Amino acid sequence: MPGGAPAGSSIADAGLAEAGRARIEWADAQMPVLRSIRERLGAHRPLDGIRVAACLHVTAETANLVRALIAGGAQVALCASNPLSTQDDTAASLVADHGAEIHAVRGEGPQAYEGHVQALAAWAPQVALDDGADLLLALHEGGPAIEGVLGATEETTIGLVRLRTLAARQALAFPVLAVNESRTERAFNDRFGTGQSTLDGILRATHLLLAGRTLVVLGYGYTGQGVALRARGAGSSVIVCEIDPLRALQARMEGFQVMPALEAAERGDVFITVTGSRDALGAEHFARMKDGAVLANAGHFDIEINLDELRGAAVDEPREVRPLVDQYDLGGRQLNLLAQGRVVNLAAAEGHPAEVMDMSFATQALCVEEIVRHGEELPARVLAVPDEIDREVARLKLEALGVRIDSLSPAQAEYLDRWDGGASESSR
Amino acid sequence: MPGGAPAGSSIADAGLAEAGRARIEWADAQMPVLRSIRERLGAHRPLDGIRVAACLHVTAETANLVRALIAGGAQVALCASNPLSTQDDTAASLVADHGAEIHAVRGEGPQAYEGHVQALAAWAPQVALDDGADLLLALHEGGPAIEGVLGATEETTIGLVRLRTLAARQALAFPVLAVNESRTERAFNDRFGTGQSTLDGILRATHLLLAGRTLVVLGYGYTGQGVALRARGAGSSVIVCEIDPLRALQARMEGFQVMPALEAAERGDVFITVTGSRDALGAEHFARMKDGAVLANAGHFDIEINLDELRGAAVDEPREVRPLVDQYDLGGRQLNLLAQGRVVNLAAAEGHPAEVMDMSFATQALCVEEIVRHGEELPARVLAVPDEIDREVARLKLEALGVRIDSLSPAQAEYLDRWDGGASESSR
Amino acid sequence: MPGGAPAGSSIADAGLAEAGRARIEWADAQMPVLRSIRERLGAHRPLDGIRVAACLHVTAETANLVRALIAGGAQVALCASNPLSTQDDTAASLVADHGAEIHAVRGEGPQAYEGHVQALAAWAPQVALDDGADLLLALHEGGPAIEGVLGATEETTIGLVRLRTLAARQALAFPVLAVNESRTERAFNDRFGTGQSTLDGILRATHLLLAGRTLVVLGYGYTGQGVALRARGAGSSVIVCEIDPLRALQARMEGFQVMPALEAAERGDVFITVTGSRDALGAEHFARMKDGAVLANAGHFDIEINLDELRGAAVDEPREVRPLVDQYDLGGRQLNLLAQGRVVNLAAAEGHPAEVMDMSFATQALCVEEIVRHGEELPARVLAVPDEIDREVARLKLEALGVRIDSLSPAQAEYLDRWDGGASESSR
Amino acid sequence: MPGGAPAGSSIADAGLAEAGRARIEWADAQMPVLRSIRERLGAHRPLDGIRVAACLHVTAETANLVRALIAGGAQVALCASNPLSTQDDTAASLVADHGAEIHAVRGEGPQAYEGHVQALAAWAPQVALDDGADLLLALHEGGPAIEGVLGATEETTIGLVRLRTLAARQALAFPVLAVNESRTERAFNDRFGTGQSTLDGILRATHLLLAGRTLVVLGYGYTGQGVALRARGAGSSVIVCEIDPLRALQARMEGFQVMPALEAAERGDVFITVTGSRDALGAEHFARMKDGAVLANAGHFDIEINLDELRGAAVDEPREVRPLVDQYDLGGRQLNLLAQGRVVNLAAAEGHPAEVMDMSFATQALCVEEIVRHGEELPARVLAVPDEIDREVARLKLEALGVRIDSLSPAQAEYLDRWDGGASESSR
Repeated sequence: MPGGAPAGSSIADAGLAEAGRARIEWADAQMPVLRSIRERLGAHRPLDGIRVAACLHVTAETANLVRALIAGGAQVALCASNPLSTQDDTAASLVADHGAEIHAVRGEGPQAYEGHVQALAAWAPQVALDDGADLLLALHEGGPAIEGVLGATEETTIGLVRLRTLAARQALAFPVLAVNESRTERAFNDRFGTGQSTLDGILRATHLLLAGRTLVVLGYGYTGQGVALRARGAGSSVIVCEIDPLRALQARMEGFQVMPALEAAERGDVFITVTGSRDALGAEHFARMKDGAVLANAGHFDIEINLDELRGAAVDEPREVRPLVDQYDLGGRQLNLLAQGRVVNLAAAEGHPAEVMDMSFATQALCVEEIVRHGEELPARVLAVPDEIDREVARLKLEALGVRIDSLSPAQAEYLDRWDGGASESSR
Repeated sequence: MPGGAPAGSSIADAGLAEAGRARIEWADAQMPVLRSIRERLGAHRPLDGIRVAACLHVTAETANLVRALIAGGAQVALCASNPLSTQDDTAASLVADHGAEIHAVRGEGPQAYEGHVQALAAWAPQVALDDGADLLLALHEGGPAIEGVLGATEETTIGLVRLRTLAARQALAFPVLAVNESRTERAFNDRFGTGQSTLDGILRATHLLLAGRTLVVLGYGYTGQGVALRARGAGSSVIVCEIDPLRALQARMEGFQVMPALEAAERGDVFITVTGSRDALGAEHFARMKDGAVLANAGHFDIEINLDELRGAAVDEPREVRPLVDQYDLGGRQLNLLAQGRVVNLAAAEGHPAEVMDMSFATQALCVEEIVRHGEELPARVLAVPDEIDREVARLKLEALGVRIDSLSPAQAEYLDRWDGGASESSR
Repeated sequence: MPGGAPAGSSIADAGLAEAGRARIEWADAQMPVLRSIRERLGAHRPLDGIRVAACLHVTAETANLVRALIAGGAQVALCASNPLSTQDDTAASLVADHGAEIHAVRGEGPQAYEGHVQALAAWAPQVALDDGADLLLALHEGGPAIEGVLGATEETTIGLVRLRTLAARQALAFPVLAVNESRTERAFNDRFGTGQSTLDGILRATHLLLAGRTLVVLGYGYTGQGVALRARGAGSSVIVCEIDPLRALQARMEGFQVMPALEAAERGDVFITVTGSRDALGAEHFARMKDGAVLANAGHFDIEINLDELRGAAVDEPREVRPLVDQYDLGGRQLNLLAQGRVVNLAAAEGHPAEVMDMSFATQALCVEEIVRHGEELPARVLAVPDEIDREVARLKLEALGVRIDSLSPAQAEYLDRWDGGASESSR
Repeated sequence: MPGGAPAGSSIADAGLAEAGRARIEWADAQMPVLRSIRERLGAHRPLDGIRVAACLHVTAETANLVRALIAGGAQVALCASNPLSTQDDTAASLVADHGAEIHAVRGEGPQAYEGHVQALAAWAPQVALDDGADLLLALHEGGPAIEGVLGATEETTIGLVRLRTLAARQALAFPVLAVNESRTERAFNDRFGTGQSTLDGILRATHLLLAGRTLVVLGYGYTGQGVALRARGAGSSVIVCEIDPLRALQARMEGFQVMPALEAAERGDVFITVTGSRDALGAEHFARMKDGAVLANAGHFDIEINLDELRGAAVDEPREVRPLVDQYDLGGRQLNLLAQGRVVNLAAAEGHPAEVMDMSFATQALCVEEIVRHGEELPARVLAVPDEIDREVARLKLEALGVRIDSLSPAQAEYLDRWDGGASESSR
């Protein structure tokens, strides 16, 4: 039945709800922007009766997005975009306390994952929120259900690559707001959130001292920039590897060393991939690395470090020397792979801090509202998040921080509007 | 005769050519990107016979742009976008050694300035390069000469504001490439060039110690970001004032203090305006400032610090306590205005380093070539610099720096192209 | 019986030895300096038969110090300087694999703690290693056993304060090497180790975003400097509170805001005490703090935040909102105390990275050797670690890092030795 | 006649006094600490009739030290420690407005320099202030005049090396306070003052962009640390070369690259020597440097870059390509030597900012007072500046900056005094 509820939640243990509740409340206390939106949505219920399907990390922060949408009147079904990051207690609380449908069990296998995505697609959602585009692609493969979709959001670079390829073939069926490319996302989620949490994950996994180490960042997009910035702030000497000449040049101007990955392979103590592509590190690189080198992936998928080639280069099975640290013996040299090459800030730490997710999910919530209000008017393309949403989120965030700023005086506004701005005699 | 040469150069002293030559050569040694373009233009002469008028700072770096255009076959006439920055020796060498027409005398008054701009407009150039839009506006007011203009470039934010206002009224007569908004400009010219040279100007004028001082940056666009970054790098505690919530939030996330300008007025030791608007500092702010506060403007026009209100607040005429430092006595408290509120990196230092101008002017040179080749096909709007020009400049720059980078492997390129990017089983 | 072995180990669970072994091996891989010393000690056994008692954090890094001493021939007994940091698995492996006597159970109460210290003192050690001076004071109170003590080391500031007070009364019975004041300690352990691990502890406990937060560091000794440096590197705006004018000035020159603690109390989001004294934060401060403020102590003892006054200010019992986060309700405002005010880098994270402890414990090992060789010649005072030990540790560390450096040429050495250094004519 | 005035001032042009006066006043406005000391000295005149000879840079900041001493009652004679830094207008004002004896002409040759030093020595001063020890050594060679010397100060590392060598031979005739090693000096003068002014000098001489450049700092003492810190803050990638293993390790832990100078020679764009020794850069290094490399010396004497070997390596005479930039052609590769290898912050910029000299000269003034009061009791050795002087200077400086700090509460003071500090039950 299109529009019917999914067949009921699949979660690990309903008994964990109380722990999840505390976790969600703590996150909520760090998410004042989303909370103020929840309050407004709750008062006006602009999402009444709307079916929202979300394929996101099942964490306490996501839970507060779900709460906001439900407060606005929506029915919400949620599955995990990455089974390793699922918090089973959060899932339990979402079911018990908030009436959401959850399909997520920490550590579930590929088949269970696929089944959960399919269940959500089959539910015929009107709005879909995605993190990697798996749900959106499933909707496109899933028959008539797709017709009722008003619009969607996607929040990863790699997901957008997939959706734009689809759009280029005229095969995208509804508008998709590129949350990942909003100014708040780039400035905060990617740069500050991932920067901090990636290093946090590496520290928890390894307990290394970053000061004095040479840290190699492969990929200098927003996320790579954040990782490089925080690594330098932690006292590391940072090398950047990048294929885009403009980004490479920017890294160099920021004071980082820039060189080809094969050269960096010989110098690094810690390697972090964040390219959005595959095989940033492979056999050639492993062959040149120092004994004790640490390999971590901060990209969405676990394909940035070529694991087959790593296994192939090792003389033996990897040995788990600390939780989440697998040591590969390359014949005398040991390479330490973190979290099996999965995204290290989620797998070895807690992902983005709630404060970062606050802005990201506030944007999501406002995007859902936008889609419900205007989705039918929007073209079936990958679209930028409207600038007003970005500004509204930033405005609410500054308010939450207690930071006050100026506004233009009438004279200044008029100055900027005048065609001859500043051409007074005195200006020369 | 439209297209005739302007009536001959007006410069301060033709006898300064030798000093100018050495200065231009030194700059050339720092401008490998422009040099490599000059060599290519010289070999192919794609600008043969084209009349190019430029209203730019008359400095050694600009001189090398002029050389590149002349090497490409162009006739070039140049006037000064700011009389205070004119290097009379550079002007002399351009005339004597390179056959350019120069209309610029250091310190010339408003009338002479206006006359020089008008002379260039009357020459009926085919391509115009501008820095503040005065020349382009003169062309629009100047009768039939405008018809032969293929296109133009503009390299200041404030100039673009003026031109976009014109375009909004359907009154823009030719395409304008917004050099100032190219990625290389923003990433290098604004951020790194102005960041360094603004502080350089302040140091030369005041000889203050920046470490331990509280420095207030008004405006957090690209240039303001550069100034704030460098000020922190020099040991200052930095406060940012900004009216845009997204930029204000970004400043806060970068670790700066953010507050309204009136509050900052009480705390700052040094104030730098870089808003692109007027009256960022006025009577209310002066009234709250500490004894000894330093006021500098890094924006294009000298209207960001309200000089009338500063004079009005003072109990006496200002006193020049060091070259370029005017001290205003506000009844016991002394405020020190640098360079009479003119753009401090040019008036008190030497403007951008040649290395920064290298990329900026390399972009200009490629834009002139683009306009000559395709100007007639382009719409009469303010247009972005084509991405290929940005990438070509960055590529040449990395080459000049001796920095090598990787390129995508075929497998990586294919991965990024595939619609199902990364959806292998192994990725979950 | 003086000199007899203590009455046997008291540990939590001998069955944990295997887990402990892996942990110790991982740490060992990060401790190349200590390892090279262990190899040398093992070859020459200069500590043959010497009884060494140590009151230190019972962690994997300490375990490798114990191994080095045992390799050198020593008998070693160890108790915990802080029961919260004891790793029960490490303790188990030390007993099973290395033949050390361990008296430490994670979370043991004050009485058990006291008993363990007394047991070690009663064992009549010849060398004592301490972290807080409890063991050394027990030895001074403990009767004739003290006569056999050749010397000791102490590695906390607060411990040295206690021992210097004792020395000032002519009551110190043997020489104590102030490991904590060695150059390697200050430059590495305090500054880099505690800087990183304190923030690590705060992140693990709270999962906050440091970027954009205002972080208040109370105390700007070496450790406070490290915390402030790392906090700025993480994107925080940092305020320093300090009572020493020289240190306060240094903080200001480094670009930090400096102000009295009561003023900082109103502005901070996170407070970190590292004063080495008591009551850095008390009722007056709590009364002014913002809702949601986080309180952490990075000092040795849990007296820097006045817990009695915090409890007194709260309207209710504290509530544990996350592990190691107790929330105190001050009538609408919530203050979040981490790790009950205990030293947060140990209680909420894993203490110093092994790499830092490597240098610290390498210094300890060389000090034990020095005491055994020369202890009888040394005066009964608190003494500086000999400079040669510092240099030897740094030399071994650079070797381990693969960093090569220059040495003075004969001409340079001669230049520095000559009385008239540089007075050639050419120098003017 | 011992104690007679020197034979009258030798200055360039007495007519420059007015320009000098403005310069001195501007500096005075930046020197609030010294001013407050001047006011106190003026009120009590503890230096009445004392002859003070000073061999210092003849700059506006030094002029204010001279004023303070004269205000305290002293007769002052001054010669230049470096003829290149002499401000002839300042010299003129000191003679005309303050009654000091000045022997200094900008650019004077070695013979004139020597003569001026001898004149001061012959005057039989009671207190001597030195910067390089030339005056103090002249006093030691100069016969009976030395007997009246109560004591002296020296403010360079190299000067102290010379004096300590003298002391080691029992040949030092009076106590010397090592101003250069006071905590304020190291923390402010060396680290912040030289850090900023060295880069300032390089920028003025070359107009290079520091961002993106690789900058090599040879020597990582306090001054080298300051240069490295500021260079990183300006966006450079910094390499440190150092012979001391502890300092080398510290540089590495601060995130800098560390390597032997020969290796750095191949990578650097800008080289700065600050070793305090000779030949930090020589033929071997020049042979490996990149075309366009810039060589600057920030050490006291011009012997850190081996100029003979540089001339020897060049195929031609050097060419001055900008003021203070001599280009050496090494057969196709050009090396650019700044300020002929003299100390670049003085020769190409204005030396330390007045604010830095404020603290340094405040310390000097208090040291002169100390010598006059207690010089006869002090041993004839190189002595540390008394801690109370350091603290007084810092206290006055904070006051001048308007920075307030806390002081110990009685309970805290008592805590730090108690022998059993912190051993309360609650602390475990």
